[in-house]
Amino acid sequence: MSDTAVLHGTIVSAPALGRLEVTEGGYLVVIEGRIAGIFRVLPDEYAALPRWDYGSALILQGLVDLHLHAPQYPMLGTGMDKPLLEWLNAYAFPTEARFADPDYARTVYRDLAHKLIRGGTTRVCMFSSLHREATLILMEELERAGVTGYVGKVNMDRGSPDYLSETTEASEAETLRWLDEAQRFTRVRPILTPRFTPSCTNALMAFLGSLGEERALPIQSHLSENRQELELVASLHPDCDHYYKTYEKYGLFNERTVMAHCVWSDEEEREAMRKRGVTVVHCPDSNQNVCSGVAPVRKMLSEGLKVALGTDIAGGDSLSMFTAAASAVRASKARRILDDWQTEPLNESEAWYLATSAGAAFFGAKPGFQVGEKLHAIVLADDALFTPHPLSASERLGRALYLRLEGAIRSVWSEGRMIF
Amino acid sequence: MSDTAVLHGTIVSAPALGRLEVTEGGYLVVIEGRIAGIFRVLPDEYAALPRWDYGSALILQGLVDLHLHAPQYPMLGTGMDKPLLEWLNAYAFPTEARFADPDYARTVYRDLAHKLIRGGTTRVCMFSSLHREATLILMEELERAGVTGYVGKVNMDRGSPDYLSETTEASEAETLRWLDEAQRFTRVRPILTPRFTPSCTNALMAFLGSLGEERALPIQSHLSENRQELELVASLHPDCDHYYKTYEKYGLFNERTVMAHCVWSDEEEREAMRKRGVTVVHCPDSNQNVCSGVAPVRKMLSEGLKVALGTDIAGGDSLSMFTAAASAVRASKARRILDDWQTEPLNESEAWYLATSAGAAFFGAKPGFQVGEKLHAIVLADDALFTPHPLSASERLGRALYLRLEGAIRSVWSEGRMIF
Repeated sequence: MSDTAVLHGTIVSAPALGRLEVTEGGYLVVIEGRIAGIFRVLPDEYAALPRWDYGSALILQGLVDLHLHAPQYPMLGTGMDKPLLEWLNAYAFPTEARFADPDYARTVYRDLAHKLIRGGTTRVCMFSSLHREATLILMEELERAGVTGYVGKVNMDRGSPDYLSETTEASEAETLRWLDEAQRFTRVRPILTPRFTPSCTNALMAFLGSLGEERALPIQSHLSENRQELELVASLHPDCDHYYKTYEKYGLFNERTVMAHCVWSDEEEREAMRKRGVTVVHCPDSNQNVCSGVAPVRKMLSEGLKVALGTDIAGGDSLSMFTAAASAVRASKARRILDDWQTEPLNESEAWYLATSAGAAFFGAKPGFQVGEKLHAIVLADDALFTPHPLSASERLGRALYLRLEGAIRSVWSEGRMIF
Repeated sequence: MSDTAVLHGTIVSAPALGRLEVTEGGYLVVIEGRIAGIFRVLPDEYAALPRWDYGSALILQGLVDLHLHAPQYPMLGTGMDKPLLEWLNAYAFPTEARFADPDYARTVYRDLAHKLIRGGTTRVCMFSSLHREATLILMEELERAGVTGYVGKVNMDRGSPDYLSETTEASEAETLRWLDEAQRFTRVRPILTPRFTPSCTNALMAFLGSLGEERALPIQSHLSENRQELELVASLHPDCDHYYKTYEKYGLFNERTVMAHCVWSDEEEREAMRKRGVTVVHCPDSNQNVCSGVAPVRKMLSEGLKVALGTDIAGGDSLSMFTAAASAVRASKARRILDDWQTEPLNESEAWYLATSAGAAFFGAKPGFQVGEKLHAIVLADDALFTPHPLSASERLGRALYLRLEGAIRSVWSEGRMIF
């Protein structure tokens, strides 16, 4: 059985922001997919279970990528020379348009799903393109690979080139059909995805808001990423003095919502997110690559907002959530300079919490490795690294964020199943 | 013979800032270590030479890391939670102190030299520690591995803990002895290395300035990295209204000098560097990790300063100059925000120039692949990357900066010799 086992190694979890719980030489027991406990000495009752001995390898929580664009994967690491709105037209939209072709989608999404799970990302909240068929293929490939979470067919009925747009009617009809067809998936579920305010007419926003309410569906979109975008949104919604109100007025801004970026969210907008229980997805690499700015993450955390992390490929240039966590630390240092050196940077433990427990919370999971939760875990063997003196478990984890240990993940558990 | 051959592939060089010269399916001919030419069709006279066919792989210039601390390699990717001066005391000095042990130095430096050449870095300008013996071991290991360039025994006779300090007399005597003993190396040469102004008494600075002048030795140090450092330097040298003058007054600031960082160099200091022909080494990862700030690189380039790149491990977290180049692009975008969006960010071609030709210039080499120059080259096979549609050679190079292609370097030539 691949859902019941004892994992032996250096168990590290993030039960709270900035706190790591370490059990050296510990035993993580999983029974029928759920965590039964973490023990220093294995209780007799579990002695007969299949046992995986990973020596001193790190046993970590699975990573959660709460914002990425699957159809931008083909352009990963290219096209970094323009700010957001120009970048969309020059690179992102033409690339996404290719996903009208299901064969192309199959090829790309199979590779993407494989890379995600091999990199330790077990949960995602992901944008597809506007194409219903390609979106179903994406869900199928993720489910097959062992990645869980939410995928959204993108809704966009204005503001994009003809080769990548849909009418309001088609957008609504295709969304309903996609929701029907997506019922066959059990581990990858649909999420409503108005691309962002400039891409959606009021009629479409209203439709999505009602649909989300009726069916209690989660919602993902972009918020306050870039200053030119803010101006554009203000001109499209003169009645809204804040960007978030363009979502709020259609019922698209609540505890079922993740909003990517929030780089330019001011005090009022942050307070609205806190009150409504919206989850902010910080995407440090993307914010830097497409010159959006630096999100005030420390401030958001002190104010009590829910903040998690995303790679935001392909504005982001790496699919690795280890890298996203290191980039969050770096970005917090850039932010510190903008804040006249008054804000404290994030440390590696805090960034790790954002990359794991904080993201998992959007899926209803408790932080860390808690008894009764379905196991999402990765086994990271960093023993190939040059290590002239012993490091503590938290130093090893911190180092793993920076050193991109390609191929060092020896095993992944996702939603209670051992994937490899 | 490993110094005469024809290399066939996609040849890309950086003859000027922001310009790439591309020869698809080209032939790079090297005779007795020197470039004989780049050809679209191989001239008959070279038909009999040994030929290496790399298909469509990229044939690129070797990388130049103009600032890194060899004895900080053991702490790579750890200890990123303090600003510079605290970081030195908490992490860097204790780590460097271990190099009093030659066996330890041998183990660490052998691994470092191997990683450098495998990563395509063929030229370095490197700090050792204050230990003469470990410095000679470092030079020996670099030379054996095929890395060329300059290595400096560090001089530091004040301001550091007892376990890592030397008297002025010992510093002078050990430097002279090291210079004698280093004569046995041919490809790795000595460079004078006053650690930075706070670490060196005036007597020691004066000694090093005269020695450099007498023997026409190159010089490396740190300049204007961090604001607390600026205050400390001002208090130590009340006669100097700029940091650079603490080097200039001892003859340590001229065209034989590389100065790392220059994050806080104002207009006068930058103009002094331009006039004196000092080379600035931009170290974007380190500047971010130890919260130094963001160097005004675009401004320096427009003003006509010589600027190259360094990884600055272990303030920097990666030994890869591909990563350093990508980080320079990212840092220029952070700088743009600090400049109220008025400065243009660097693009990938510009960053590549800084990582190759600009650094090579400090060793007297002409930019790009020029006839008559000793060949420093790397062959980068990016064909394992998922590439759903064809990319141009410059897109492939740009992508290689972001995607850290561990293991993709198939061959390296250093100073006219094929290393592997």
